Amino acid sequence: MSIDSHAGLADIKALESSICEIDQGKLSYRGFDINDLAEHSSIEEVSYLLLNDALPSPHEFKDFLAALKAEYSLPREIVEHITHVPREANPMAILRTLVSSLGLHDPEHDDHSIPARYRRGLRLLAKIPLIVAAIARHHDARSIVASNPDLGIAANFLHCLYGEEPDRETAHLLDTTLILYAEHELNASAFAARISAATRADTYSCLVAAISTLQGDLHGGANQRSLEMLLTMGTVTRVDEYLLPRLKAKEIIMGFGHRVYKNGDPRVPVLRKMCTSLAEKKNEMELIRVALRTEEIMLKEKGLYANVDFYSGLAFYLLGLSAKLFTCVFALARTPGYLAHIAEQRNANKLIRPRSVYVGKSNRKYTSISSR
Amino acid sequence: MSIDSHAGLADIKALESSICEIDQGKLSYRGFDINDLAEHSSIEEVSYLLLNDALPSPHEFKDFLAALKAEYSLPREIVEHITHVPREANPMAILRTLVSSLGLHDPEHDDHSIPARYRRGLRLLAKIPLIVAAIARHHDARSIVASNPDLGIAANFLHCLYGEEPDRETAHLLDTTLILYAEHELNASAFAARISAATRADTYSCLVAAISTLQGDLHGGANQRSLEMLLTMGTVTRVDEYLLPRLKAKEIIMGFGHRVYKNGDPRVPVLRKMCTSLAEKKNEMELIRVALRTEEIMLKEKGLYANVDFYSGLAFYLLGLSAKLFTCVFALARTPGYLAHIAEQRNANKLIRPRSVYVGKSNRKYTSISSR
Repeated sequence: MSIDSHAGLADIKALESSICEIDQGKLSYRGFDINDLAEHSSIEEVSYLLLNDALPSPHEFKDFLAALKAEYSLPREIVEHITHVPREANPMAILRTLVSSLGLHDPEHDDHSIPARYRRGLRLLAKIPLIVAAIARHHDARSIVASNPDLGIAANFLHCLYGEEPDRETAHLLDTTLILYAEHELNASAFAARISAATRADTYSCLVAAISTLQGDLHGGANQRSLEMLLTMGTVTRVDEYLLPRLKAKEIIMGFGHRVYKNGDPRVPVLRKMCTSLAEKKNEMELIRVALRTEEIMLKEKGLYANVDFYSGLAFYLLGLSAKLFTCVFALARTPGYLAHIAEQRNANKLIRPRSVYVGKSNRKYTSISSR
Repeated sequence: MSIDSHAGLADIKALESSICEIDQGKLSYRGFDINDLAEHSSIEEVSYLLLNDALPSPHEFKDFLAALKAEYSLPREIVEHITHVPREANPMAILRTLVSSLGLHDPEHDDHSIPARYRRGLRLLAKIPLIVAAIARHHDARSIVASNPDLGIAANFLHCLYGEEPDRETAHLLDTTLILYAEHELNASAFAARISAATRADTYSCLVAAISTLQGDLHGGANQRSLEMLLTMGTVTRVDEYLLPRLKAKEIIMGFGHRVYKNGDPRVPVLRKMCTSLAEKKNEMELIRVALRTEEIMLKEKGLYANVDFYSGLAFYLLGLSAKLFTCVFALARTPGYLAHIAEQRNANKLIRPRSVYVGKSNRKYTSISSR
């Protein structure tokens, strides 16, 4: 890479934002430390915070929850669409298609005012978890389950997924995971959403661009790949023999290292703690030991720390989610962040359009095909 | 905007590329001047060039055309899907959904090898024009028309759109417009496609991210808006009274200026000439006079030159296309460029992930809701 171009835009500051701060290994949403939010808040309140830059008053929160729950169902056309999708298709490809399709049935699709865009955001916050649950049910040839409006986003998602109300601790682990995943500055998918928003594309387009970008295994796919590795190793005695030859062969181990965090991901300690507590109850402590030994080796051999994907894969597994579904759950978790970025981009817009450095051939002459 | 961030990444060099060169107002694809390509080549040959970095030999071109034409039909599920879409929905939202849905029915969806990805590219090159034509037919409650494998991409698109074979000059104008639109370096939608590709998302995801980004009226929507303005002015005597007050009020006039070209868009002269020739035949010369007077005023008053969107809107209108369809035609035209960018990104990959500068509040303390 020549000195004239910035490979991958690493460390280039593309824009100003007041959504997420990453400072010396500390992560804050709208100025609130995520450890405080993970301990005290809920994904609904964090969504409100991300969208409004303030924690809600009791009255505001009541209205917000009512608006969310008014959207706790899918249009008939979307339900029908799901049942016609090939079962073996990639769940993220299905999610991409259905969120796009949802835009065709938005009751306010012609209204581009700021309040209409805000309502559209709540609609997507409420409906994307339902789409993900429906994709999973369809994959297993089970019928789609209607929402329970008494439940919050995390518990209702598990209810729609399994057809029964989750216990308190399970719902709480998902809620916390959703909080920790809700937003992460200019990650590749949020950046794609903003590039789309900067052309003044509609909210559905921006979100579809984000989901399309999250799909790749270097981004949203990392937690699935990382969990699959933990399961392959299976017992702590096999970790060294699995990892060391792979590290020697310079293979990439998913779930480690982060372009932004060099000294550890601040989301890991709380997730590790919650996973350990749930693993104890579910008699899965061997997997925690596998995870810890993997962390040890990666730090010693490569100087790399576990990132959020490493433990969220484990969290999703302990929640009983199928590995195929992990990236979709990541997508539903990141939706509040995407929506905050889309709104911020639209409200102070400038087209995002860098240049490339041309390194190809120049001044070639066209010749007719018969002379080639 | 603080000096620490690069607003809109203007003039930041994000990556190296050997696809498109923009140098002192000259535009080349793979080192071939677009004026030569517009005069001598076809959109099929230009697509081959963009994907293979070489003009095809007679034998290679024959195989390429055969592979394209083998994909000149839509899966049954996609045809059915189109007929269930709400007629009043935004055509770009429909295109976004259907291209995404096409990915669910790709016969090689599990094959991520380079040859399979190349074949997937040809599949999309052939099928996206058919989807666009079908969207237009469905909008007008007309039945979908099957391809004519004797025709090239441009003529076949017009055939599928109108149900009859176009005359030579009409097909040629579209073919030339497709060549001029086929690629344009790191424009916002190609950049979005590369961000998606850089996470190792699949070709459909990358293309859907591009289409989602093209949708905005600051990007793909500009030619429609610009043509609507020409039609509103209608006669050359009304241009001054329409434009001058709007310029005084600092309104944005679509189709003028370009972040990359400060002294005129190299695609404009050839398009202007072809539009003029077709307008003469179609008795639409008044619109050309309106366009020329608009160019004069914009240059005099704002120092801005017309860009490709200004004349392509006019070209599409003279081809008989409905203004609602313009952005979809832009999308089908840009597909070869997107595919070249996706392949180039995948073949020498690095995650694209810039940073933002945090300008929001810091160190806020969480308080319980009852105390707010």
